[in-house]
Amino acid sequence: MKNGTRLQEHKNRIALLVQYEGTNFNGCQSQANGRTVQDEIEKALKVLFRKNIRIVVSGRTDAGVHAAGQVIHFDLDVPVKLQKLCINLNGILERDISIKNAYIVPPTFHARFSAVSREYLYMIYNYPQRSPLFINKAVWINSPLDVNFLRSIATFLTGEKDFASFCKKKSAEENTVRRIDRFDIKKINELIIMKIAGNAFLHNMIRIIAGTMLEMAKNGKEPSYVLEILEEKDRNAAGKTAPACGLYLNRIIYDPPLSSMESAF
Amino acid sequence: MKNGTRLQEHKNRIALLVQYEGTNFNGCQSQANGRTVQDEIEKALKVLFRKNIRIVVSGRTDAGVHAAGQVIHFDLDVPVKLQKLCINLNGILERDISIKNAYIVPPTFHARFSAVSREYLYMIYNYPQRSPLFINKAVWINSPLDVNFLRSIATFLTGEKDFASFCKKKSAEENTVRRIDRFDIKKINELIIMKIAGNAFLHNMIRIIAGTMLEMAKNGKEPSYVLEILEEKDRNAAGKTAPACGLYLNRIIYDPPLSSMESAF
Repeated sequence: MKNGTRLQEHKNRIALLVQYEGTNFNGCQSQANGRTVQDEIEKALKVLFRKNIRIVVSGRTDAGVHAAGQVIHFDLDVPVKLQKLCINLNGILERDISIKNAYIVPPTFHARFSAVSREYLYMIYNYPQRSPLFINKAVWINSPLDVNFLRSIATFLTGEKDFASFCKKKSAEENTVRRIDRFDIKKINELIIMKIAGNAFLHNMIRIIAGTMLEMAKNGKEPSYVLEILEEKDRNAAGKTAPACGLYLNRIIYDPPLSSMESAF
Repeated sequence: MKNGTRLQEHKNRIALLVQYEGTNFNGCQSQANGRTVQDEIEKALKVLFRKNIRIVVSGRTDAGVHAAGQVIHFDLDVPVKLQKLCINLNGILERDISIKNAYIVPPTFHARFSAVSREYLYMIYNYPQRSPLFINKAVWINSPLDVNFLRSIATFLTGEKDFASFCKKKSAEENTVRRIDRFDIKKINELIIMKIAGNAFLHNMIRIIAGTMLEMAKNGKEPSYVLEILEEKDRNAAGKTAPACGLYLNRIIYDPPLSSMESAF
């Protein structure tokens, strides 16, 4: 039901669809140092509602990582018009972050725990010379990559696996089993676009997967070599963490989907 | 014939395929004030060859306009390896400009006069709220655009016409007849991409066409109204010049094509 103008009763749980260009953010989640997406949104909400409102983010993104579809939620005890909320927040927020849509969600909705699937993109500019058109937007790899080789590795990584080798060491997550549902790779001119969707991802998991693929291509490994890396269950077995600027949080999927909720647009 | 390593005899005419992110350029052509693409390349050539080398550009692009495939040429009286030329120039040039390829062209080749066709892109981010992912890369239009409406206007503009109404006033070009060969418009998610190819374009022609289309959409005009604008042969009849940041010089086509020449990549 789309109706951005109806005055809502309080108290409402609101979800926001958020886009940001991650270059000048020290990641998404609040922390001691640096400008974060969470802080910027909370500051804008404070300007708008004249009080502290804590937001909950679907999941962290690291410094330099972009988002086309991050989701956050918070509670409001005042009536709100969803369109006006978006417009007002975008009037306050700097140009490298914006609210794409706003939704009235059930009080049980949780940006992180209600998510059933997450979709990321990883972008590679694959050409012998660097491109000024993808500065901070894609990783430049100057040696030719075979998309079918990358696709073969992607197939080996699809499904439910223990991704311990593809997790940032310090995180030390207890359960490192995750499920990759789809892992598509396409090439448009010089741009290689990896699209990867799964139930959840470990810290740095996609960047380590991308970095491992690039290293395997460089070292002439067989695609099935990635199975050995998986089996090691050791971060040292995988390749380097690929740069943050190639990564985009593209979509968080909920059930029921956000598109079925009352929204601004 | 691709062979970047063969030592060339002097004297050679060299063509370069150039990309730039136009935001921080005061256009392509040298002028009294501001940083230009031509100056940056000539400065880099001077560093490399220790003398002044004048370049000829296929055509000017205005301040803020991007290029994925600008072409320039110049003459060299010393031997040159094409790959090394690209790598060395890209090592000198700042990150918002790069040499994509280099070619040995016949002495009769002229970046501007040998061009048989030019292709531009115009990018529109069409969504109610602004996007941080297209800052300086596309024009934001917040009211919904009907792609089929835009396509109908494009059809009326295709062919050989007098585009006097779509030419910057001060330029006062004598002959304002140009031929648009193709004018395709597609929509990918929120991005509308116009691709327009023709033998040549008047000053600001594509930006005035884009601006006129947007104004006609806003004012609820019929697509055929553009024929009346054409007939006026008066800049005042058309719409505003659309912003520079949406425009990309995508490709210059030569006969024989650059791809048939000896090249670096």
